[in-house]
Amino acid sequence: MQKILRVNMANRDFKIEDVPQKYAAMGGRALTSQLIADEVPATCNALGEFNKLVIAPGLLSGTQAPSSGRLSVGGKSPLTGGIKEANAGGITSQKLANLGIKAIIIEGKPAGKGFSLLKITPDGMEMLPVDDLAGKGTYEVTAICRQRYGDKVAVITIGPAGEMLMPSAGVTNNDSDGNSSRYAGRGGLGAVMGSKGLKAIVVDCPKTFDAPVQDPVRFKAAAKKFAKILLDHPVCGQGLPAYGTNVLMNIINEAGALPVRNFSYGRFDKAGEVSGEKLAEVANARGGKATHACHPGCVMRCSNVYPMPDGKVCSPIEYETAWGFGPNLEISDLDVVAKLNYICNDVGLDTVEAGCTLGVLAEAGAIPFGDGPVAIAALEEVGNGTPLGRIIGSGATNAGKVFGVTRVPAVKGQGIPAYDPRSCKGNGVTYATTTMGADHTAGYAVTANILKVGGFVDPTQKGGQVELSRNLQVATAAIDASGLCLFVAFAVLDNPEGLPTIVEMINAQYGTALTVDDVVALGQSILKTERQFNKEAGFTKADDRLPEFFSKEVFAPHNTQFDVSDEELDEVFNF
Amino acid sequence: MQKILRVNMANRDFKIEDVPQKYAAMGGRALTSQLIADEVPATCNALGEFNKLVIAPGLLSGTQAPSSGRLSVGGKSPLTGGIKEANAGGITSQKLANLGIKAIIIEGKPAGKGFSLLKITPDGMEMLPVDDLAGKGTYEVTAICRQRYGDKVAVITIGPAGEMLMPSAGVTNNDSDGNSSRYAGRGGLGAVMGSKGLKAIVVDCPKTFDAPVQDPVRFKAAAKKFAKILLDHPVCGQGLPAYGTNVLMNIINEAGALPVRNFSYGRFDKAGEVSGEKLAEVANARGGKATHACHPGCVMRCSNVYPMPDGKVCSPIEYETAWGFGPNLEISDLDVVAKLNYICNDVGLDTVEAGCTLGVLAEAGAIPFGDGPVAIAALEEVGNGTPLGRIIGSGATNAGKVFGVTRVPAVKGQGIPAYDPRSCKGNGVTYATTTMGADHTAGYAVTANILKVGGFVDPTQKGGQVELSRNLQVATAAIDASGLCLFVAFAVLDNPEGLPTIVEMINAQYGTALTVDDVVALGQSILKTERQFNKEAGFTKADDRLPEFFSKEVFAPHNTQFDVSDEELDEVFNF
Repeated sequence: MQKILRVNMANRDFKIEDVPQKYAAMGGRALTSQLIADEVPATCNALGEFNKLVIAPGLLSGTQAPSSGRLSVGGKSPLTGGIKEANAGGITSQKLANLGIKAIIIEGKPAGKGFSLLKITPDGMEMLPVDDLAGKGTYEVTAICRQRYGDKVAVITIGPAGEMLMPSAGVTNNDSDGNSSRYAGRGGLGAVMGSKGLKAIVVDCPKTFDAPVQDPVRFKAAAKKFAKILLDHPVCGQGLPAYGTNVLMNIINEAGALPVRNFSYGRFDKAGEVSGEKLAEVANARGGKATHACHPGCVMRCSNVYPMPDGKVCSPIEYETAWGFGPNLEISDLDVVAKLNYICNDVGLDTVEAGCTLGVLAEAGAIPFGDGPVAIAALEEVGNGTPLGRIIGSGATNAGKVFGVTRVPAVKGQGIPAYDPRSCKGNGVTYATTTMGADHTAGYAVTANILKVGGFVDPTQKGGQVELSRNLQVATAAIDASGLCLFVAFAVLDNPEGLPTIVEMINAQYGTALTVDDVVALGQSILKTERQFNKEAGFTKADDRLPEFFSKEVFAPHNTQFDVSDEELDEVFNF
Repeated sequence: MQKILRVNMANRDFKIEDVPQKYAAMGGRALTSQLIADEVPATCNALGEFNKLVIAPGLLSGTQAPSSGRLSVGGKSPLTGGIKEANAGGITSQKLANLGIKAIIIEGKPAGKGFSLLKITPDGMEMLPVDDLAGKGTYEVTAICRQRYGDKVAVITIGPAGEMLMPSAGVTNNDSDGNSSRYAGRGGLGAVMGSKGLKAIVVDCPKTFDAPVQDPVRFKAAAKKFAKILLDHPVCGQGLPAYGTNVLMNIINEAGALPVRNFSYGRFDKAGEVSGEKLAEVANARGGKATHACHPGCVMRCSNVYPMPDGKVCSPIEYETAWGFGPNLEISDLDVVAKLNYICNDVGLDTVEAGCTLGVLAEAGAIPFGDGPVAIAALEEVGNGTPLGRIIGSGATNAGKVFGVTRVPAVKGQGIPAYDPRSCKGNGVTYATTTMGADHTAGYAVTANILKVGGFVDPTQKGGQVELSRNLQVATAAIDASGLCLFVAFAVLDNPEGLPTIVEMINAQYGTALTVDDVVALGQSILKTERQFNKEAGFTKADDRLPEFFSKEVFAPHNTQFDVSDEELDEVFNF
């Protein structure tokens, strides 16, 4: 029997609730967004007593469904002021599902200071004071928790950035190796967790794949079929397992859509130095791993383990992070990128936002472009809570205001990642319109724009981008509800049996009779719920726009400008 | 013949334009807001090439009308993101009116760095490079300009804060003594001027009261009558001339509406130490002035000249500034208040926003409450552009985000001044709903709430506050168009002949046949224009709200909460 765990941090109490019928068919993003919409006043202060943090495994998490271990974290974002679902890999989602926990709702706010730890085991729950963990980085906190509670536990935690309520602080959890770097990074949900006085959640559950399935035979067949669909696809079965997401560095550079020097031009002559190919080479030479699974049962294994010169390990270096700390800052030293990545992971900061923010600081002249040591020194100030550190932790938009910068790559207060909207216009439409603030994962048009997955839509032309982004945003919302990794989309877009097989797995697990149309309807429904929340929070069409400079400045090498009109952008949510 | 001076900073060129019929009957805020609404895209970047800075004297400025020397400065605000009119005393408005300049429109943006000075004389105009003035404080810039161009010139300028594009930088001009401290302070228009590469405007005109009047005899009679109306009123004729605006310190404290310790409670046992009475005593003892006119022809003379221990002079210390740096920070040393005021004036920062921002920093623990030297040291960082200095210059809302503070007293991104919305609820309604972001001058309900001017509405109860604020906002918009100081409102509210006499002066000057109803219609029209701009900029009902803590925390000594409902607030603009 599934249940909802409701934790009130005002008195550090908790209770177990039955799942209301309304939420029975929901998981992941569908559930976090609906709970936030139902329980959180849209205009509340995101760091105040009325916001809530909701953590939910996806519908398929905890089963044998391949690559289904994504964890959704939701709340009102202190970065955007709108609704937020950030999701992550790692081992927590599967454990929660195997404990029958459909969602954890963390609400209220303690009157005093001090941090607590919530421990969840098959036998019950406990709230422990952990002021000894306060101020510690996520790596150390995770290591201590694994020492205290066993090395199989999942540890959801925040770093000092979240404790200090920085608007771009993330919520992390660990992989099977105990590496605390699986981030629900975007939108500052780490600060929401920090505002609740909750330093960590430890989930102790020995099971990984044993969540209840109504028709195991049927489920197993569908899961097997789905694994084959993934492995047969060139991106899911070959590209990602070989070089991880950073396989994109050379591809996006070649496409001329790599934002270099704070979105000033689209190609970086040293992109190869920070590419996935280079990463694999160095990682292998140093005894790391070029391929690695972020959670058990993932067949794409797009993660990596990068040993750094100081003996520590950064895992993983994702493409968007390598872009943010690499080409975006005109830095071409992979060890510098890894170090910046590691600092973010440890202090508990979203790497994409940090990359954008450092780009804005460089644009302001506060730090130089192309200077790794200065960037590292600046980022290290975050953990010390210095004024500069806090500015960095506040994200690109706030940093832009503080430094009077007009070229700030952000939408709805959230930094734009890794794909320039002028030469990957489908992503531009997504950045402008998604409920999440600029977010590449919300409608990843790189597929048809550049990778020629799911068809081809010329990335430098505006034709077809609105429809492309709309369809992807709907599909993504549904996938984010399933617990499947978004990367299954590459295969699903190219293989007509992909989506029906996902539906088959869900039906076999829950005894439902969903159709493919129902999945589309679910995606639309999630987006409508989120749009409505944002509307009540004060968002309007004016928020569904890219920054001015994308339509004014010409972007080399294709000499493009973002020219999707306001009227066209307003057609994205026409359903 | 009146004209519009249009300055294009992209090429540092200018041209003189006839006044289109549409704008003929407009002045001050009516004109700045209409020009901004007509010429500035509401969603543009406030520091980008598409924003404009508009400077306009009021309709009656430059005549013998008493207290009519207010200057309106308008633009899209980098602080609020909405439309902004900030207005100031000083000698510029009268000079511009006597030159026949109805408005200066500063547009475009230079490609390179460097600052210019625009010189306006009766014989023509000139644009001069003034990189030697860049980085200098407003006092020095004004002194240099008076040395270069004569000690009768008016100097509009910005300080380093405006040059550094800080969102709470103001635009200042000088009084007859050459003191550069008459601030169009709120909303960051100094940063807009800075973004245009314009350091100063020098206005050289020997005339003060000779703007054309169609019926001088009739005008003179009306002006004389209006002066008597002002002088006969206890606030305009006695309170303000005796102690300036800071006469309010003891009054608001006694009323229990003085926001102490970042809006934590409503009475300060040391309020008397920073009151107008104390200020007059010290100023007189040190050879300063307890009463002083900010521009020729003011009969209320509410300004003051406060000699500081270091030999410099701060003029004036207004109530809202004394509050922001005094009770708000739990500081009770008038010399500290004066010093903080002086730093703001010199570096070019709005004192109200700076007070609110330091309060937020103290709330965050970044500086202590009640520590003058630390507050001074922090504020001095603004001019140096350090990270902390830039945070302070970015205003209370941004500082709150950077430091993770939930108790941020601000609406639409602008700090709340000097009158707590829980025990002066009429002002609370104004703060929430005015187009300007929290602004006490936009609908100064202190009149009926506390001063018992224009009737009485119990400040601790919500009844009647919406209507009170609405009427005051409409009247204020019209007064801000006239060039009259807002303080004439005290007399106008109590004397039924006040408003007809203003209308009589306007009719005598322009040969119009306006009625009192037309003035009300003008005020409504201005507000509608501004609301429409803000709507297009993305403002919604959600922006017409006070911060959460005002409705949750109980405010001593009256144990009040802000309880005007959302629905009631939405009725303010029901016309």
